[in-house]
Amino acid sequence: MKVDGRHYRSIWVNADGVTVDVIDQTRLPHEFEILNLTTLADACAAIRNMVVRGAPLIGATAAYGIYFAMREDPSDDGLERAGGALLATRPTAVNLRWALQRMQTLLEGAEPQDRAARAFDAAGAIAELDVETNRQIGRNGLELIREIAAGKQPGEAVNILTHCNAGWLATVDWGTATAPIYLAQDAGIELHVWVDETRPRNQGALTAWELGHHGVAHTYIVDNAGGHLMREGRVDLCLVGSDRTLRSGDVCNKIGTYLKALAARDNDIPFYVCLPGSTIDWDIGDSADIPIEQRDPEEITGVTGRLTEGERETVTVTPPNSAVANYAFDVTPARLVSGLVTERGILVASEKALSQAFADLAG
Amino acid sequence: MKVDGRHYRSIWVNADGVTVDVIDQTRLPHEFEILNLTTLADACAAIRNMVVRGAPLIGATAAYGIYFAMREDPSDDGLERAGGALLATRPTAVNLRWALQRMQTLLEGAEPQDRAARAFDAAGAIAELDVETNRQIGRNGLELIREIAAGKQPGEAVNILTHCNAGWLATVDWGTATAPIYLAQDAGIELHVWVDETRPRNQGALTAWELGHHGVAHTYIVDNAGGHLMREGRVDLCLVGSDRTLRSGDVCNKIGTYLKALAARDNDIPFYVCLPGSTIDWDIGDSADIPIEQRDPEEITGVTGRLTEGERETVTVTPPNSAVANYAFDVTPARLVSGLVTERGILVASEKALSQAFADLAG
Repeated sequence: MKVDGRHYRSIWVNADGVTVDVIDQTRLPHEFEILNLTTLADACAAIRNMVVRGAPLIGATAAYGIYFAMREDPSDDGLERAGGALLATRPTAVNLRWALQRMQTLLEGAEPQDRAARAFDAAGAIAELDVETNRQIGRNGLELIREIAAGKQPGEAVNILTHCNAGWLATVDWGTATAPIYLAQDAGIELHVWVDETRPRNQGALTAWELGHHGVAHTYIVDNAGGHLMREGRVDLCLVGSDRTLRSGDVCNKIGTYLKALAARDNDIPFYVCLPGSTIDWDIGDSADIPIEQRDPEEITGVTGRLTEGERETVTVTPPNSAVANYAFDVTPARLVSGLVTERGILVASEKALSQAFADLAG
Repeated sequence: MKVDGRHYRSIWVNADGVTVDVIDQTRLPHEFEILNLTTLADACAAIRNMVVRGAPLIGATAAYGIYFAMREDPSDDGLERAGGALLATRPTAVNLRWALQRMQTLLEGAEPQDRAARAFDAAGAIAELDVETNRQIGRNGLELIREIAAGKQPGEAVNILTHCNAGWLATVDWGTATAPIYLAQDAGIELHVWVDETRPRNQGALTAWELGHHGVAHTYIVDNAGGHLMREGRVDLCLVGSDRTLRSGDVCNKIGTYLKALAARDNDIPFYVCLPGSTIDWDIGDSADIPIEQRDPEEITGVTGRLTEGERETVTVTPPNSAVANYAFDVTPARLVSGLVTERGILVASEKALSQAFADLAG
């Protein structure tokens, strides 16, 4: 998508054909800095330090990390070491594991002298696949926006609420929840997006940055505000992403998603979840069994931003002796989900619909 | 309630019998500083600069402001000027207007030479009335906690979730939503409070500070987390305050309250609103007619906290060109409210119950 009028992806191969650039997401939304990756260590550091974030982007970065490693040491040992080093950067990231397994399987069957070239192509294919998947999610979700737009007066915007950053920065391009939005914008549909701040990590600032640079009208709000806006009739559609979707249709996503789904239901507002089939978890049957990550309380107690002079700084917002709990995700039960927008169409949030559409994955 | 083991109110008359002290709430939760008020200008500045906040405390501070003014100039002109100056500090505060009218009515009927003494007594009475009202709300709400505690195993805490700061800092003592909590704590009931951060102004930090100093076990969470905790069965009771309650039982309170009420309903968790009868609005019939204050976007874009060196600083968390909307309140419809905890008992959130219990006010 666009930054300062120019099209970017979140990761790309340079003109030199051997090095890879990424956007340093730790600097956003205040500074736009590009970081050059040339070694396995660079790729590991970028993932570990959250220079890159979002499951699909982490997967693509890891794939290029394997490519870098194969340039240095294409032996079986080198391949194994590289996989181990990358996996250790974010051990719970599902897409990281998936991308590494895919690379491993492919390269094991290749001669060492061919591995660097094969890895380069395979990493590129992983990135392209992600772009295509998201574009297709976008095309499918666009129909929802078109339908709502058809009922609007000329000049009246379709109001969409989103939570967290399921945007192009979290993928290679388009994003998941944002893909229908960008396609609608490009199609000239009048749009306005309510962007949830998404405490504690304030990923809403990334979404606002994305939308702003692509020219999408939007308003940043605190997570508390969505219910009020829905009651006031100022939200036509909710579009969110998903970290993990169960075959039942229950959706595990960024903490706070469930509250917005409740408000949408209470106000008869469609609530759609946008996700690639790769994030469906076919193994866990009951959402109560989903492990909910508890993260560092410092993500809550300390808020990072920019001082007036432009310097980045972290301030403590809580009293020193209070306990703090930081739950990263919640579960939105399928009954609150109007539909799942996937690359294979918009599906009812049910086991039947999911296992029909993804019969090849359902196992 | 207690601070560092000593009992404090949020406003008190000093041993000199003529000056009044308040806690500088702009410094909380990081520093505990007491500010001495001796003149009308002091009282005006304290209200305007939010050194004091919360409707009941603002009312009491204004009453003492009139007392200060009467010491200097007890003429009719002096009285009128003082009232005007105080009212202008926070023009939309309902309790400020109420306290000033009460003082005005009382002092108009007194001779100028008696006005300072009368004002001193009347201000004290306003403060005492608030303390008594809250204590009674606490006694009534305590029964809810007792009932839940009776169903717990020994050593198992009653888990209460609260939003914003409806605590003693916002009143003269006890608070509204916190009064049952403090009484339960004093009664030896095992308790644990989930404290919503309450963006954008992070009043949860004040609640956490209060509870911590009074020895109440608590955990600070982001506003997004409450739904997850309720789904996990980790909340037994929600207790919140109210800025304005309609005769219908609809409750206007800090933005985000409605989302917690929805989650409570979805998980069959009792959701009670604690309020003094004085905050019932008998005039507005339909909650759609409640004016929802929109505040300065800088409350959202800038987050204030403490740097490692202890200095207070504000950091900007949003991209520079994004629109920001800051809605201060939302409405929780009566159908989601399990009951209203008032100084006159726990009432059904309905016109019938409210106008029976407060027949003298209902008009």
